[in-house]
Amino acid sequence: MSPRINAQLAFLNEADRLKQVLRATTLVDGSRRENSGEHSWHLALYALVLADHAAPGVNIDRVVRMLILHDLVEIDVGDVPIHSANGQAHGSEATRAAEAAAADRIFGLLPPDIGQDLRALWEEFEAAESPDAVFAKSLDRVQPVMANLMSGGGTWVEYNVTAEELESRVGVKVARGAPRLWEHVRGLTRAFFAG
Amino acid sequence: MSPRINAQLAFLNEADRLKQVLRATTLVDGSRRENSGEHSWHLALYALVLADHAAPGVNIDRVVRMLILHDLVEIDVGDVPIHSANGQAHGSEATRAAEAAAADRIFGLLPPDIGQDLRALWEEFEAAESPDAVFAKSLDRVQPVMANLMSGGGTWVEYNVTAEELESRVGVKVARGAPRLWEHVRGLTRAFFAG
Repeated sequence: MSPRINAQLAFLNEADRLKQVLRATTLVDGSRRENSGEHSWHLALYALVLADHAAPGVNIDRVVRMLILHDLVEIDVGDVPIHSANGQAHGSEATRAAEAAAADRIFGLLPPDIGQDLRALWEEFEAAESPDAVFAKSLDRVQPVMANLMSGGGTWVEYNVTAEELESRVGVKVARGAPRLWEHVRGLTRAFFAG
Repeated sequence: MSPRINAQLAFLNEADRLKQVLRATTLVDGSRRENSGEHSWHLALYALVLADHAAPGVNIDRVVRMLILHDLVEIDVGDVPIHSANGQAHGSEATRAAEAAAADRIFGLLPPDIGQDLRALWEEFEAAESPDAVFAKSLDRVQPVMANLMSGGGTWVEYNVTAEELESRVGVKVARGAPRLWEHVRGLTRAFFAG
């Protein structure tokens, strides 16, 4: 028995729990809430399909890797909806500290060389400064917009979100990494917020 | 409104349906069946974590791309469990023809340049000949073994699978792309099949 393979498999078994972390957003058909595992898959597909919206020099394969990893800390912390607590809970100091502790535990299950590489990618995503991370964040913000549009409003209804709040909490960050995409999707949201 | 962006988003909305395709395999904790969207995410994570089991020259980023795409045809065809119909249904001519028609429809939603690239990757995965595809297939076969091990037997119990059937339907294909991994995991399965 190889301790290294045991550590790799222990991490992958633990990661399975992300399939049970529920997000505020529903599936496109509104039938149930989305979990963070399938959300991460959908975002990786977003990156492959919307690659032509990324800034020059963005490495889509690194973006995909970030998106696969980006929510693992939610196994311990849960999902913090972007529009909850009037938009104040997401990204708070308390949330960030809990997520860092979760990253210590979860990436710490891996052999150190692998754990350090994946942890570094997660931290790059969280920092949202590198071009790859900025594009990854854009996709993470735009995918729930599409789900809300398709399902009749979703979390916008649940949290009484206005067009201005959508722009400041979501649109600005989508536009930062994928400006043409946000211009298009914002156009799609007008009918909902005019209604 | 850009027809190209509309096509990209229409494909991504349609892909959402993969989250509702249920597989025979359960989550690691046995609480419910796994869906093909979250399964695809888990496999992409398998590729990142188990990259050191791939043959020299395997491009892990291409493997990840294949794994993200590999089950999209199930939106139309559903999942065909590997152990169902005494191991005869999976990979049958009828299944392959249905999956090719599904690929025509689903990848055909995309702008042609993107659709052709993704379709080619899916066909490479299905052919299971290139080193990247062989490794991707190994991961697709080993992940349900881990879920069955963790959940007390899972589909092995449901379909009365023997150790010999596991070896011929699953083990041979895991070993083809990741021999050390299968040696380790086969060892883990001995306790179950001896029981």
